[in-house]
Amino acid sequence: MPRIVQRTEQALERYLPAADIEPATLHEAMRYATLGGGKRLRALLCHAAGELVGAELDTLDGAASAIEMIHAYSLVHDDLPAMDNDLLRRGLPTVHVRYGEAMAILVGDGLQAQAFAVIGELPATAAQKVALLKELASASSSQGMVGGQAIDLASVGLVLAREQLERMHRLKTGAVLRASIFMGAHAGPSTMSPELHAALDQYQRAVGLAFQVVDDILDVTTDAATLGKTPGKDAQDNKPTYVSLLGLDASRALAEELGERARIALLPLGERAAHLLGLADAVVHRIR
Amino acid sequence: MPRIVQRTEQALERYLPAADIEPATLHEAMRYATLGGGKRLRALLCHAAGELVGAELDTLDGAASAIEMIHAYSLVHDDLPAMDNDLLRRGLPTVHVRYGEAMAILVGDGLQAQAFAVIGELPATAAQKVALLKELASASSSQGMVGGQAIDLASVGLVLAREQLERMHRLKTGAVLRASIFMGAHAGPSTMSPELHAALDQYQRAVGLAFQVVDDILDVTTDAATLGKTPGKDAQDNKPTYVSLLGLDASRALAEELGERARIALLPLGERAAHLLGLADAVVHRIR
Repeated sequence: MPRIVQRTEQALERYLPAADIEPATLHEAMRYATLGGGKRLRALLCHAAGELVGAELDTLDGAASAIEMIHAYSLVHDDLPAMDNDLLRRGLPTVHVRYGEAMAILVGDGLQAQAFAVIGELPATAAQKVALLKELASASSSQGMVGGQAIDLASVGLVLAREQLERMHRLKTGAVLRASIFMGAHAGPSTMSPELHAALDQYQRAVGLAFQVVDDILDVTTDAATLGKTPGKDAQDNKPTYVSLLGLDASRALAEELGERARIALLPLGERAAHLLGLADAVVHRIR
Repeated sequence: MPRIVQRTEQALERYLPAADIEPATLHEAMRYATLGGGKRLRALLCHAAGELVGAELDTLDGAASAIEMIHAYSLVHDDLPAMDNDLLRRGLPTVHVRYGEAMAILVGDGLQAQAFAVIGELPATAAQKVALLKELASASSSQGMVGGQAIDLASVGLVLAREQLERMHRLKTGAVLRASIFMGAHAGPSTMSPELHAALDQYQRAVGLAFQVVDDILDVTTDAATLGKTPGKDAQDNKPTYVSLLGLDASRALAEELGERARIALLPLGERAAHLLGLADAVVHRIR
């Protein structure tokens, strides 16, 4: 997988406007927000699902870049003073700390537009590009990621039922993780079989939720240096989490159970799904 | 043209998530930001260019809705405290005044995603959708509208040369006006001839610039009730404008000259371009 992470960095380098193109500060800040860091989980999921269907690597690079730009934009806007007011991200000052609040708003806006521009440009048929466009737009929308963020904002100080907490995360982080997987599958030469669609859908539900449960665990068990962002923020901001709802031990058990559910979902796909299986395991056992 | 404005309102009603879909406050705010107001100049340009090439009205409604969503999102983010800090828009409180700053950020983000979702869904061939996607993404990008906004931010308190001022506006407002016209033309059944492309390009340059010159004139000559937003803001914010650069009379003469240039650009297209001609005239002689 380090090879895919490297490919993704190189693709992002190519698909982001160069830092000497005007307006240069904006482009420098867009690159600062996107390049040189992050686990690239979304790119890895996209490539692993694409591998399963025999998609071209160049097409997957474009799709993965678009997804990582959406993810990067969401972090820039989430970190803003009016939102989570975070100062540290991937061990570095957040975009608004480094470039100012107005620029950070524009960086996010520009990254979202660039993600869709990449879909228009990547090497694929028109039908594939439209399928990729639909997945990405839907995942990013007010009924996807942005909707989850709105529910998150409205939930500060509330005690959510487990079902409500799941719904928030299914939108806030789950929608883009889901799109990563389905965009990889859409990049293949033929349309998805119902069996593949069903298996990937079961898989993405388990992995998306596991990701969030582990996030909540790490937020209370890990220091800033390992995490690369400010830990303990959720409790401090009075946000509902799996740990606050279930406790630490039950949250850890839930993460393991979700990893097992992801494994079972992939069984019908056999050996071809080895990379997806490895990613589920990495999500459950990640330490940052 | 009132028929097209009405069609556009109805199309936006359909293409925006209903106000009772969760998260309901976000969707209510997205509709507040987009519906029931505005001149719909971009939708009118899209329809007028589409009429010229025999595009289907339903396709144009979708394309026009996507453009108006991008325009609405840009106003919501431009009005934010960290940007222009505007309190009044279309005679009503701006989105951040009414719904709070965090929600206003999400409203803009959600509208941008929704615009691209609409392109994915509208009735057109995959090739047309990809052409529309490319125009819209490029116009909205850091080398289009968002880039112009970044240059605008960096220009506060500076005296710009006329060429620099033109460049800023060509990006900030010109790029989306240009996309409105070319998206209309892409919605037609066949690819654009080089002659049509050249005529529309000349036309969009003149109209885009005229729009901004008249904006600057209205900012110093019109009251808040007519304008529907706070006048005098540019001078107060120490922003370079055509009026501050050329004076009021020369700005008025420039607007007329640009209107004439738009008329000349359309001559090769004959009677078919009557609506585009009328829109150029409306841009030059608008009073709000």
